[in-house]
Amino acid sequence: MSVVLDAIETKKTGGVLDDATLAAVVGGYTAGTIPDYQMAALLMAIRWQGMTYSETQELTRIMAESGPRYSFPDCVDKHSTGGVGDKVTLTALPLVAACGARVAKLSGRGLGITGGTIDKLEAIPGLDVHLSEDRFRRQVADIGLVIGEAGDLAPADKAIYALRDTTGTVDSLPLIGSSIVSKKVATGAGHLLYDVKAGSGAFMTTVESARELAELLVRLSGSFGITASALVTDMATPLGRAVGNALEVRESVAFLRGEPTSPDLAEVARDVAVRLLQLTGAEDPDRAVDQALSSGAGYEKFAALVHAQGGDVAALADMAVSRDVREVISPAAGSVAAFDALGIARASVALGAGRERKDDPLDFGAGVEMLVQVGDRVDIGQPVAKLYGSRRTDEATRLVSAALAVTDGPVDRRPHLLASL
Amino acid sequence: MSVVLDAIETKKTGGVLDDATLAAVVGGYTAGTIPDYQMAALLMAIRWQGMTYSETQELTRIMAESGPRYSFPDCVDKHSTGGVGDKVTLTALPLVAACGARVAKLSGRGLGITGGTIDKLEAIPGLDVHLSEDRFRRQVADIGLVIGEAGDLAPADKAIYALRDTTGTVDSLPLIGSSIVSKKVATGAGHLLYDVKAGSGAFMTTVESARELAELLVRLSGSFGITASALVTDMATPLGRAVGNALEVRESVAFLRGEPTSPDLAEVARDVAVRLLQLTGAEDPDRAVDQALSSGAGYEKFAALVHAQGGDVAALADMAVSRDVREVISPAAGSVAAFDALGIARASVALGAGRERKDDPLDFGAGVEMLVQVGDRVDIGQPVAKLYGSRRTDEATRLVSAALAVTDGPVDRRPHLLASL
Repeated sequence: MSVVLDAIETKKTGGVLDDATLAAVVGGYTAGTIPDYQMAALLMAIRWQGMTYSETQELTRIMAESGPRYSFPDCVDKHSTGGVGDKVTLTALPLVAACGARVAKLSGRGLGITGGTIDKLEAIPGLDVHLSEDRFRRQVADIGLVIGEAGDLAPADKAIYALRDTTGTVDSLPLIGSSIVSKKVATGAGHLLYDVKAGSGAFMTTVESARELAELLVRLSGSFGITASALVTDMATPLGRAVGNALEVRESVAFLRGEPTSPDLAEVARDVAVRLLQLTGAEDPDRAVDQALSSGAGYEKFAALVHAQGGDVAALADMAVSRDVREVISPAAGSVAAFDALGIARASVALGAGRERKDDPLDFGAGVEMLVQVGDRVDIGQPVAKLYGSRRTDEATRLVSAALAVTDGPVDRRPHLLASL
Repeated sequence: MSVVLDAIETKKTGGVLDDATLAAVVGGYTAGTIPDYQMAALLMAIRWQGMTYSETQELTRIMAESGPRYSFPDCVDKHSTGGVGDKVTLTALPLVAACGARVAKLSGRGLGITGGTIDKLEAIPGLDVHLSEDRFRRQVADIGLVIGEAGDLAPADKAIYALRDTTGTVDSLPLIGSSIVSKKVATGAGHLLYDVKAGSGAFMTTVESARELAELLVRLSGSFGITASALVTDMATPLGRAVGNALEVRESVAFLRGEPTSPDLAEVARDVAVRLLQLTGAEDPDRAVDQALSSGAGYEKFAALVHAQGGDVAALADMAVSRDVREVISPAAGSVAAFDALGIARASVALGAGRERKDDPLDFGAGVEMLVQVGDRVDIGQPVAKLYGSRRTDEATRLVSAALAVTDGPVDRRPHLLASL
């Protein structure tokens, strides 16, 4: 019997795949000698039976070693499991770089309801995310902050992930964990903070499942010599007020420049920055982050990255967003009980800010800006959101309206930081 | 989301596939618009979650209607779930035809450890199993007995079965049941007996699982207007003494001619014949079968089939088997406690009587003849089996030796009929 059929039988009967079998299966699949349909069956069996920690660790190693590997042992990196309006990379990383930590980050593009940092950066005119290894290393040395597009890292993970995405086998903790950590191991930063999102707009919808993933990510990373910790943050509503590429850059710049922004963005960006500095052993990281914010050093660092990567720094002060704007109004008076992240994300995709398929073209200026947050009082007819963009605006209006829940009684704001480990 | 991804999610979350979804998935897969890998993932999810009876019934109907459908409402048919040395079709069907029942049977070829009636018939020189529908119908009318090769029946089942066979998704009761019954519904015989084998040489290794399958087959068949019943028969050891194509024809002919053969073959062949006659409402089927045997009418009917399908009737009296013969001897004195069907089947395949892959060439004269049965006394060095054929004889010798278990104490013979419903 073939190695993959053996592996399927092993998983079906509750057994454990040994290292050689995992290597043969992943290697065979990546090389094309194991067909998609057998790998799909194996992944579904794994999705049902799970994997032991040591199987998960070995799978991570095999996928990390399936392509080029970099090494930035002194650098920090952060990874978000993906959310709506997630501007933590654009805000927290300039702050930690301003505090003296070196940041070497490789990011991805958005797909489905999840935005991607690379798309957001490309909303800045001229900015280049395709950096050679040399240029990437030089920028780390020169300004201590670089964000490039993750290209050919962990190709085995890329192939397996694409198959999982089309076979209903994404929802498996060991497969999610090994996929994330394999790319981080290949990137090679020595210090890593995971921001695991929980809520309707996130991959993990409950705090419990998010915490479980966070624990696996930290444990796996540690076993590959990475100093790691994790936060679980709320994604029941989008982070901050803006969803959409240029809109999110605009909000991030405003935050870094000390302009008033929403308290949840400030809370998470600061938390992440402080935790990253703690990982590097920095002294008094709270004070350092405060200073980087109040002095404008965080913004300066972000501007230095934009400049170094060929972007138009002058454009940052007044990011171009779509001129097609319409408002969504509240149908009732009361308190905002919820402004659902999933609905706003779908509206944002409908407007052109995100992709339904891998090669959908983006409208960088499109998106949604929320004018109210959970706990705010609203009147009938009061504008609750602005929609930017000219595609499928009616659908977006319906989606944003449906995402808003207004209640009679008072509503408490929920903390954005749900757990840390 | 696509219909197949929806279906995967539905099964994963314990839901039920509606008729339209099943039709779209099976139709899409057969037409090639749903790729193998998505179907494999769905099959694995079904393998885990099972299917309700009504899902199973609808899947059966869709697969039965995916190709040509015949109608022989007056005819009887039998179906074996596949065993080792299974000569029930070659023995019971001529008997029932001799008793006046009309038999319209479509059979398959052997694969793996399971032999196929079509291969056995082709061991008879000149015999043709590729019959047009016209010729098939004419032979039913003329002699009341025909066995042809199941060609393009239920193509959706054929495609799905091939995928299951290579993705570890064969072991699912609803998938097994719908696969078997879809072909029977397409064949169109009105009366059907299922011979569900249980034991090491069968698909179902326990009596409980065989009984469960038998119940499903009878229930499903009834829902399509087929009068059906089922037997569960033993496949811990091969049926009769011979395993291999010409060897099994030789043993079947000997039985039909009233020559001494093994009691288990006589028991099962008679049981099946009687049960088939009962399904048609025949009077005193026991006596009718006795007479068909003692008068030689059963043999005459078999000879008539061979003649009608172009075979050499004279060759039946002395079927050509391989001249390369070696004996396997007992390593110990005592009672035969087991002569394992799986081991003997593997030996038979090694000798060339069966196929490991779909297009392996057969040696019709190859196979294994057991000289002792469970319960027999043996001496050290006594021949226990004859191996016929020139391929991989050492491996076959080892396999047959390992299949034999000899014990000190006395051993009871087990009944071959384990359950009937």
